Amino acid sequence: MMENNTPHKEEQDILFGRNAVTEALSSGRPVEHLLVEQGSGGYGKLISRCRERGIPVKEVSQKKLEGMYGGAGHQGIALVCAVKDYASVDDILQSAQEKGEPPFIVIADEIMDPHNLGAIIRSAYALGAHGIIIPKRRSAGLTSTVYKTSAGALSHIPVARVSNLVSCLEELKKKNIWCYCADMDGQSYCSVNFSGGVALIIGSEGEGVGRLIREHCDITVSLPMANQYDSLNASVAAGILMQEIYRQRLGLKALNPKG
Amino acid sequence: MMENNTPHKEEQDILFGRNAVTEALSSGRPVEHLLVEQGSGGYGKLISRCRERGIPVKEVSQKKLEGMYGGAGHQGIALVCAVKDYASVDDILQSAQEKGEPPFIVIADEIMDPHNLGAIIRSAYALGAHGIIIPKRRSAGLTSTVYKTSAGALSHIPVARVSNLVSCLEELKKKNIWCYCADMDGQSYCSVNFSGGVALIIGSEGEGVGRLIREHCDITVSLPMANQYDSLNASVAAGILMQEIYRQRLGLKALNPKG
Repeated sequence: MMENNTPHKEEQDILFGRNAVTEALSSGRPVEHLLVEQGSGGYGKLISRCRERGIPVKEVSQKKLEGMYGGAGHQGIALVCAVKDYASVDDILQSAQEKGEPPFIVIADEIMDPHNLGAIIRSAYALGAHGIIIPKRRSAGLTSTVYKTSAGALSHIPVARVSNLVSCLEELKKKNIWCYCADMDGQSYCSVNFSGGVALIIGSEGEGVGRLIREHCDITVSLPMANQYDSLNASVAAGILMQEIYRQRLGLKALNPKG
Repeated sequence: MMENNTPHKEEQDILFGRNAVTEALSSGRPVEHLLVEQGSGGYGKLISRCRERGIPVKEVSQKKLEGMYGGAGHQGIALVCAVKDYASVDDILQSAQEKGEPPFIVIADEIMDPHNLGAIIRSAYALGAHGIIIPKRRSAGLTSTVYKTSAGALSHIPVARVSNLVSCLEELKKKNIWCYCADMDGQSYCSVNFSGGVALIIGSEGEGVGRLIREHCDITVSLPMANQYDSLNASVAAGILMQEIYRQRLGLKALNPKG
C-alpha cells in the first residue's frame, strides 16, 4: 500500500529576506511567526519588533529555510503570514458581554492539524461560541488552509493565542468560567451541566489534553464509545460537545428514556 | 493569499498495464475500480470480469492516464486497488442481528472527500453503527487515505457500496429500518426518536443529500445553528447525530431544562 505522508500538507504565505520582512511588519499585515536562521546575526531589530508585537520568533536551520525557499536567496530570515490578526482573550469575553451571554470559549490544546483546527473553528462559530484560544507553540496557526477548512467562519469569530494555557485557564476561572476538559475517562457528557460560562478544552488526537492543563480543569467530560479503545477525530469530538453545550444554552429538551 | 488546491489530494495504489491488472484480478485483491482509456480496444474480457464482480469500470482520457502513470507506458488500462473488500448490505444487517441489536447503518451520500469519509467510518465504528453504505459513483472509495483517516476503524466495520441508493433505501424500509436524512431544514435532532432500526443519511458538503434520496427518507433531521447560513463539516454533523442515536440506544438520560 502506498503511504501518504503529507495528507495535511499546509501551504503558507511566506515572505523571505530582510526587505520583504521589514515591509510586511511595517504594513501591519497579520503575522503567524518569524523564522530566523540559526547563528545568523544582524536581525536583532526585526526580532525585537516581533517580540514587542507578541509574534513568536523561531530559530530554524539553513537547510530548512533553503527547502522552504527553494534555494539560497532567503537571507536567513522569513515571515510566515496569517490570514487574520489574532484577537485577545479580552476581545472574546467582550463579544460574549455584548451579546449578553455567558462566555462560551473553545480552547484547542496543541491541535497541529490545520484541517482539524479549521473544522473546530467552523463548528465553534456555528454552535454559538464566542471565540477560540490556541497556544503560541505547538498549534496550527491562522493559515489559508485553516481558513478554507473553516468554510470562512474564521472571518467571523475571534481567535486568541496565549503563551501559557495554564495561566489562561486560571484567569478564566477567576471570571467564573468553568473549564471542561474533553478526555476518555471523564464523566459522561449526558450528565454534565454546562450552564454559566464555559471553556471547553479539546486536546490533540495523539496526546489528548496535556496533564497540566487537565489538572487545572474543573470537570473532565467523556463521550460514551462502543469499544474500549475507540476514539473520535478531535474535530468530531469537539463538535459533539459544542452541540450539547449549545442545546443546553438554547434550553432545547432532549428525548429521554422513560422511567 | 496562496491558494491550496489540493488539500485532500489522495494517494492511491494503482496498477497499470494488461499483465498487472490481470494478475491483480486473479489474486482476488480488493479493487476500487477499473480505468480504461477511451477508445482503446482489446480489454473486453477484463471489463467483463470486473462487471461480473461488481467492480465499476470507468472510461478516462489518454491524458489523464498519462498524468497518473507519469508517462505513456500505461497500455490504456489501470486498476485502482482498495485496502479492503466491500461488504454487502446483507453483511451489515447480519452483523446487527448477531449482536442482537436493531440495525444502525450510516449512508454516506456522495462524500467525495476521503478525509470526511474516513472520519465518518471512524465515528460509525466508535458509536455503535453496524456498517456504512456508499454509492458506487461519486464517492471516495476504500483507499489508503480513507483507511488512515478512519484511524484503522475501517478494518473493523463493513462498508457496502450500491449502484442505486434510492432502491437501497426502499429495501431497508421494507425491513422496518427508518431512514433519517440530515439536512438544514428538518426537525431538530433533539426531538427525534431514533428507536428501532436506523439508517442515517449524510450528504456531501456542497450539495447536501440529493433531492431524490431525500424524498425517500422518512424524517429529515437538522442541527440547530447560531447563524442562518452556518453549516458544519459533513463528518462533524454525522458525528453529532450518531452520538445522539447511540445515546438513545444506550438509554442514557440527557440533562433537560426545567419546566
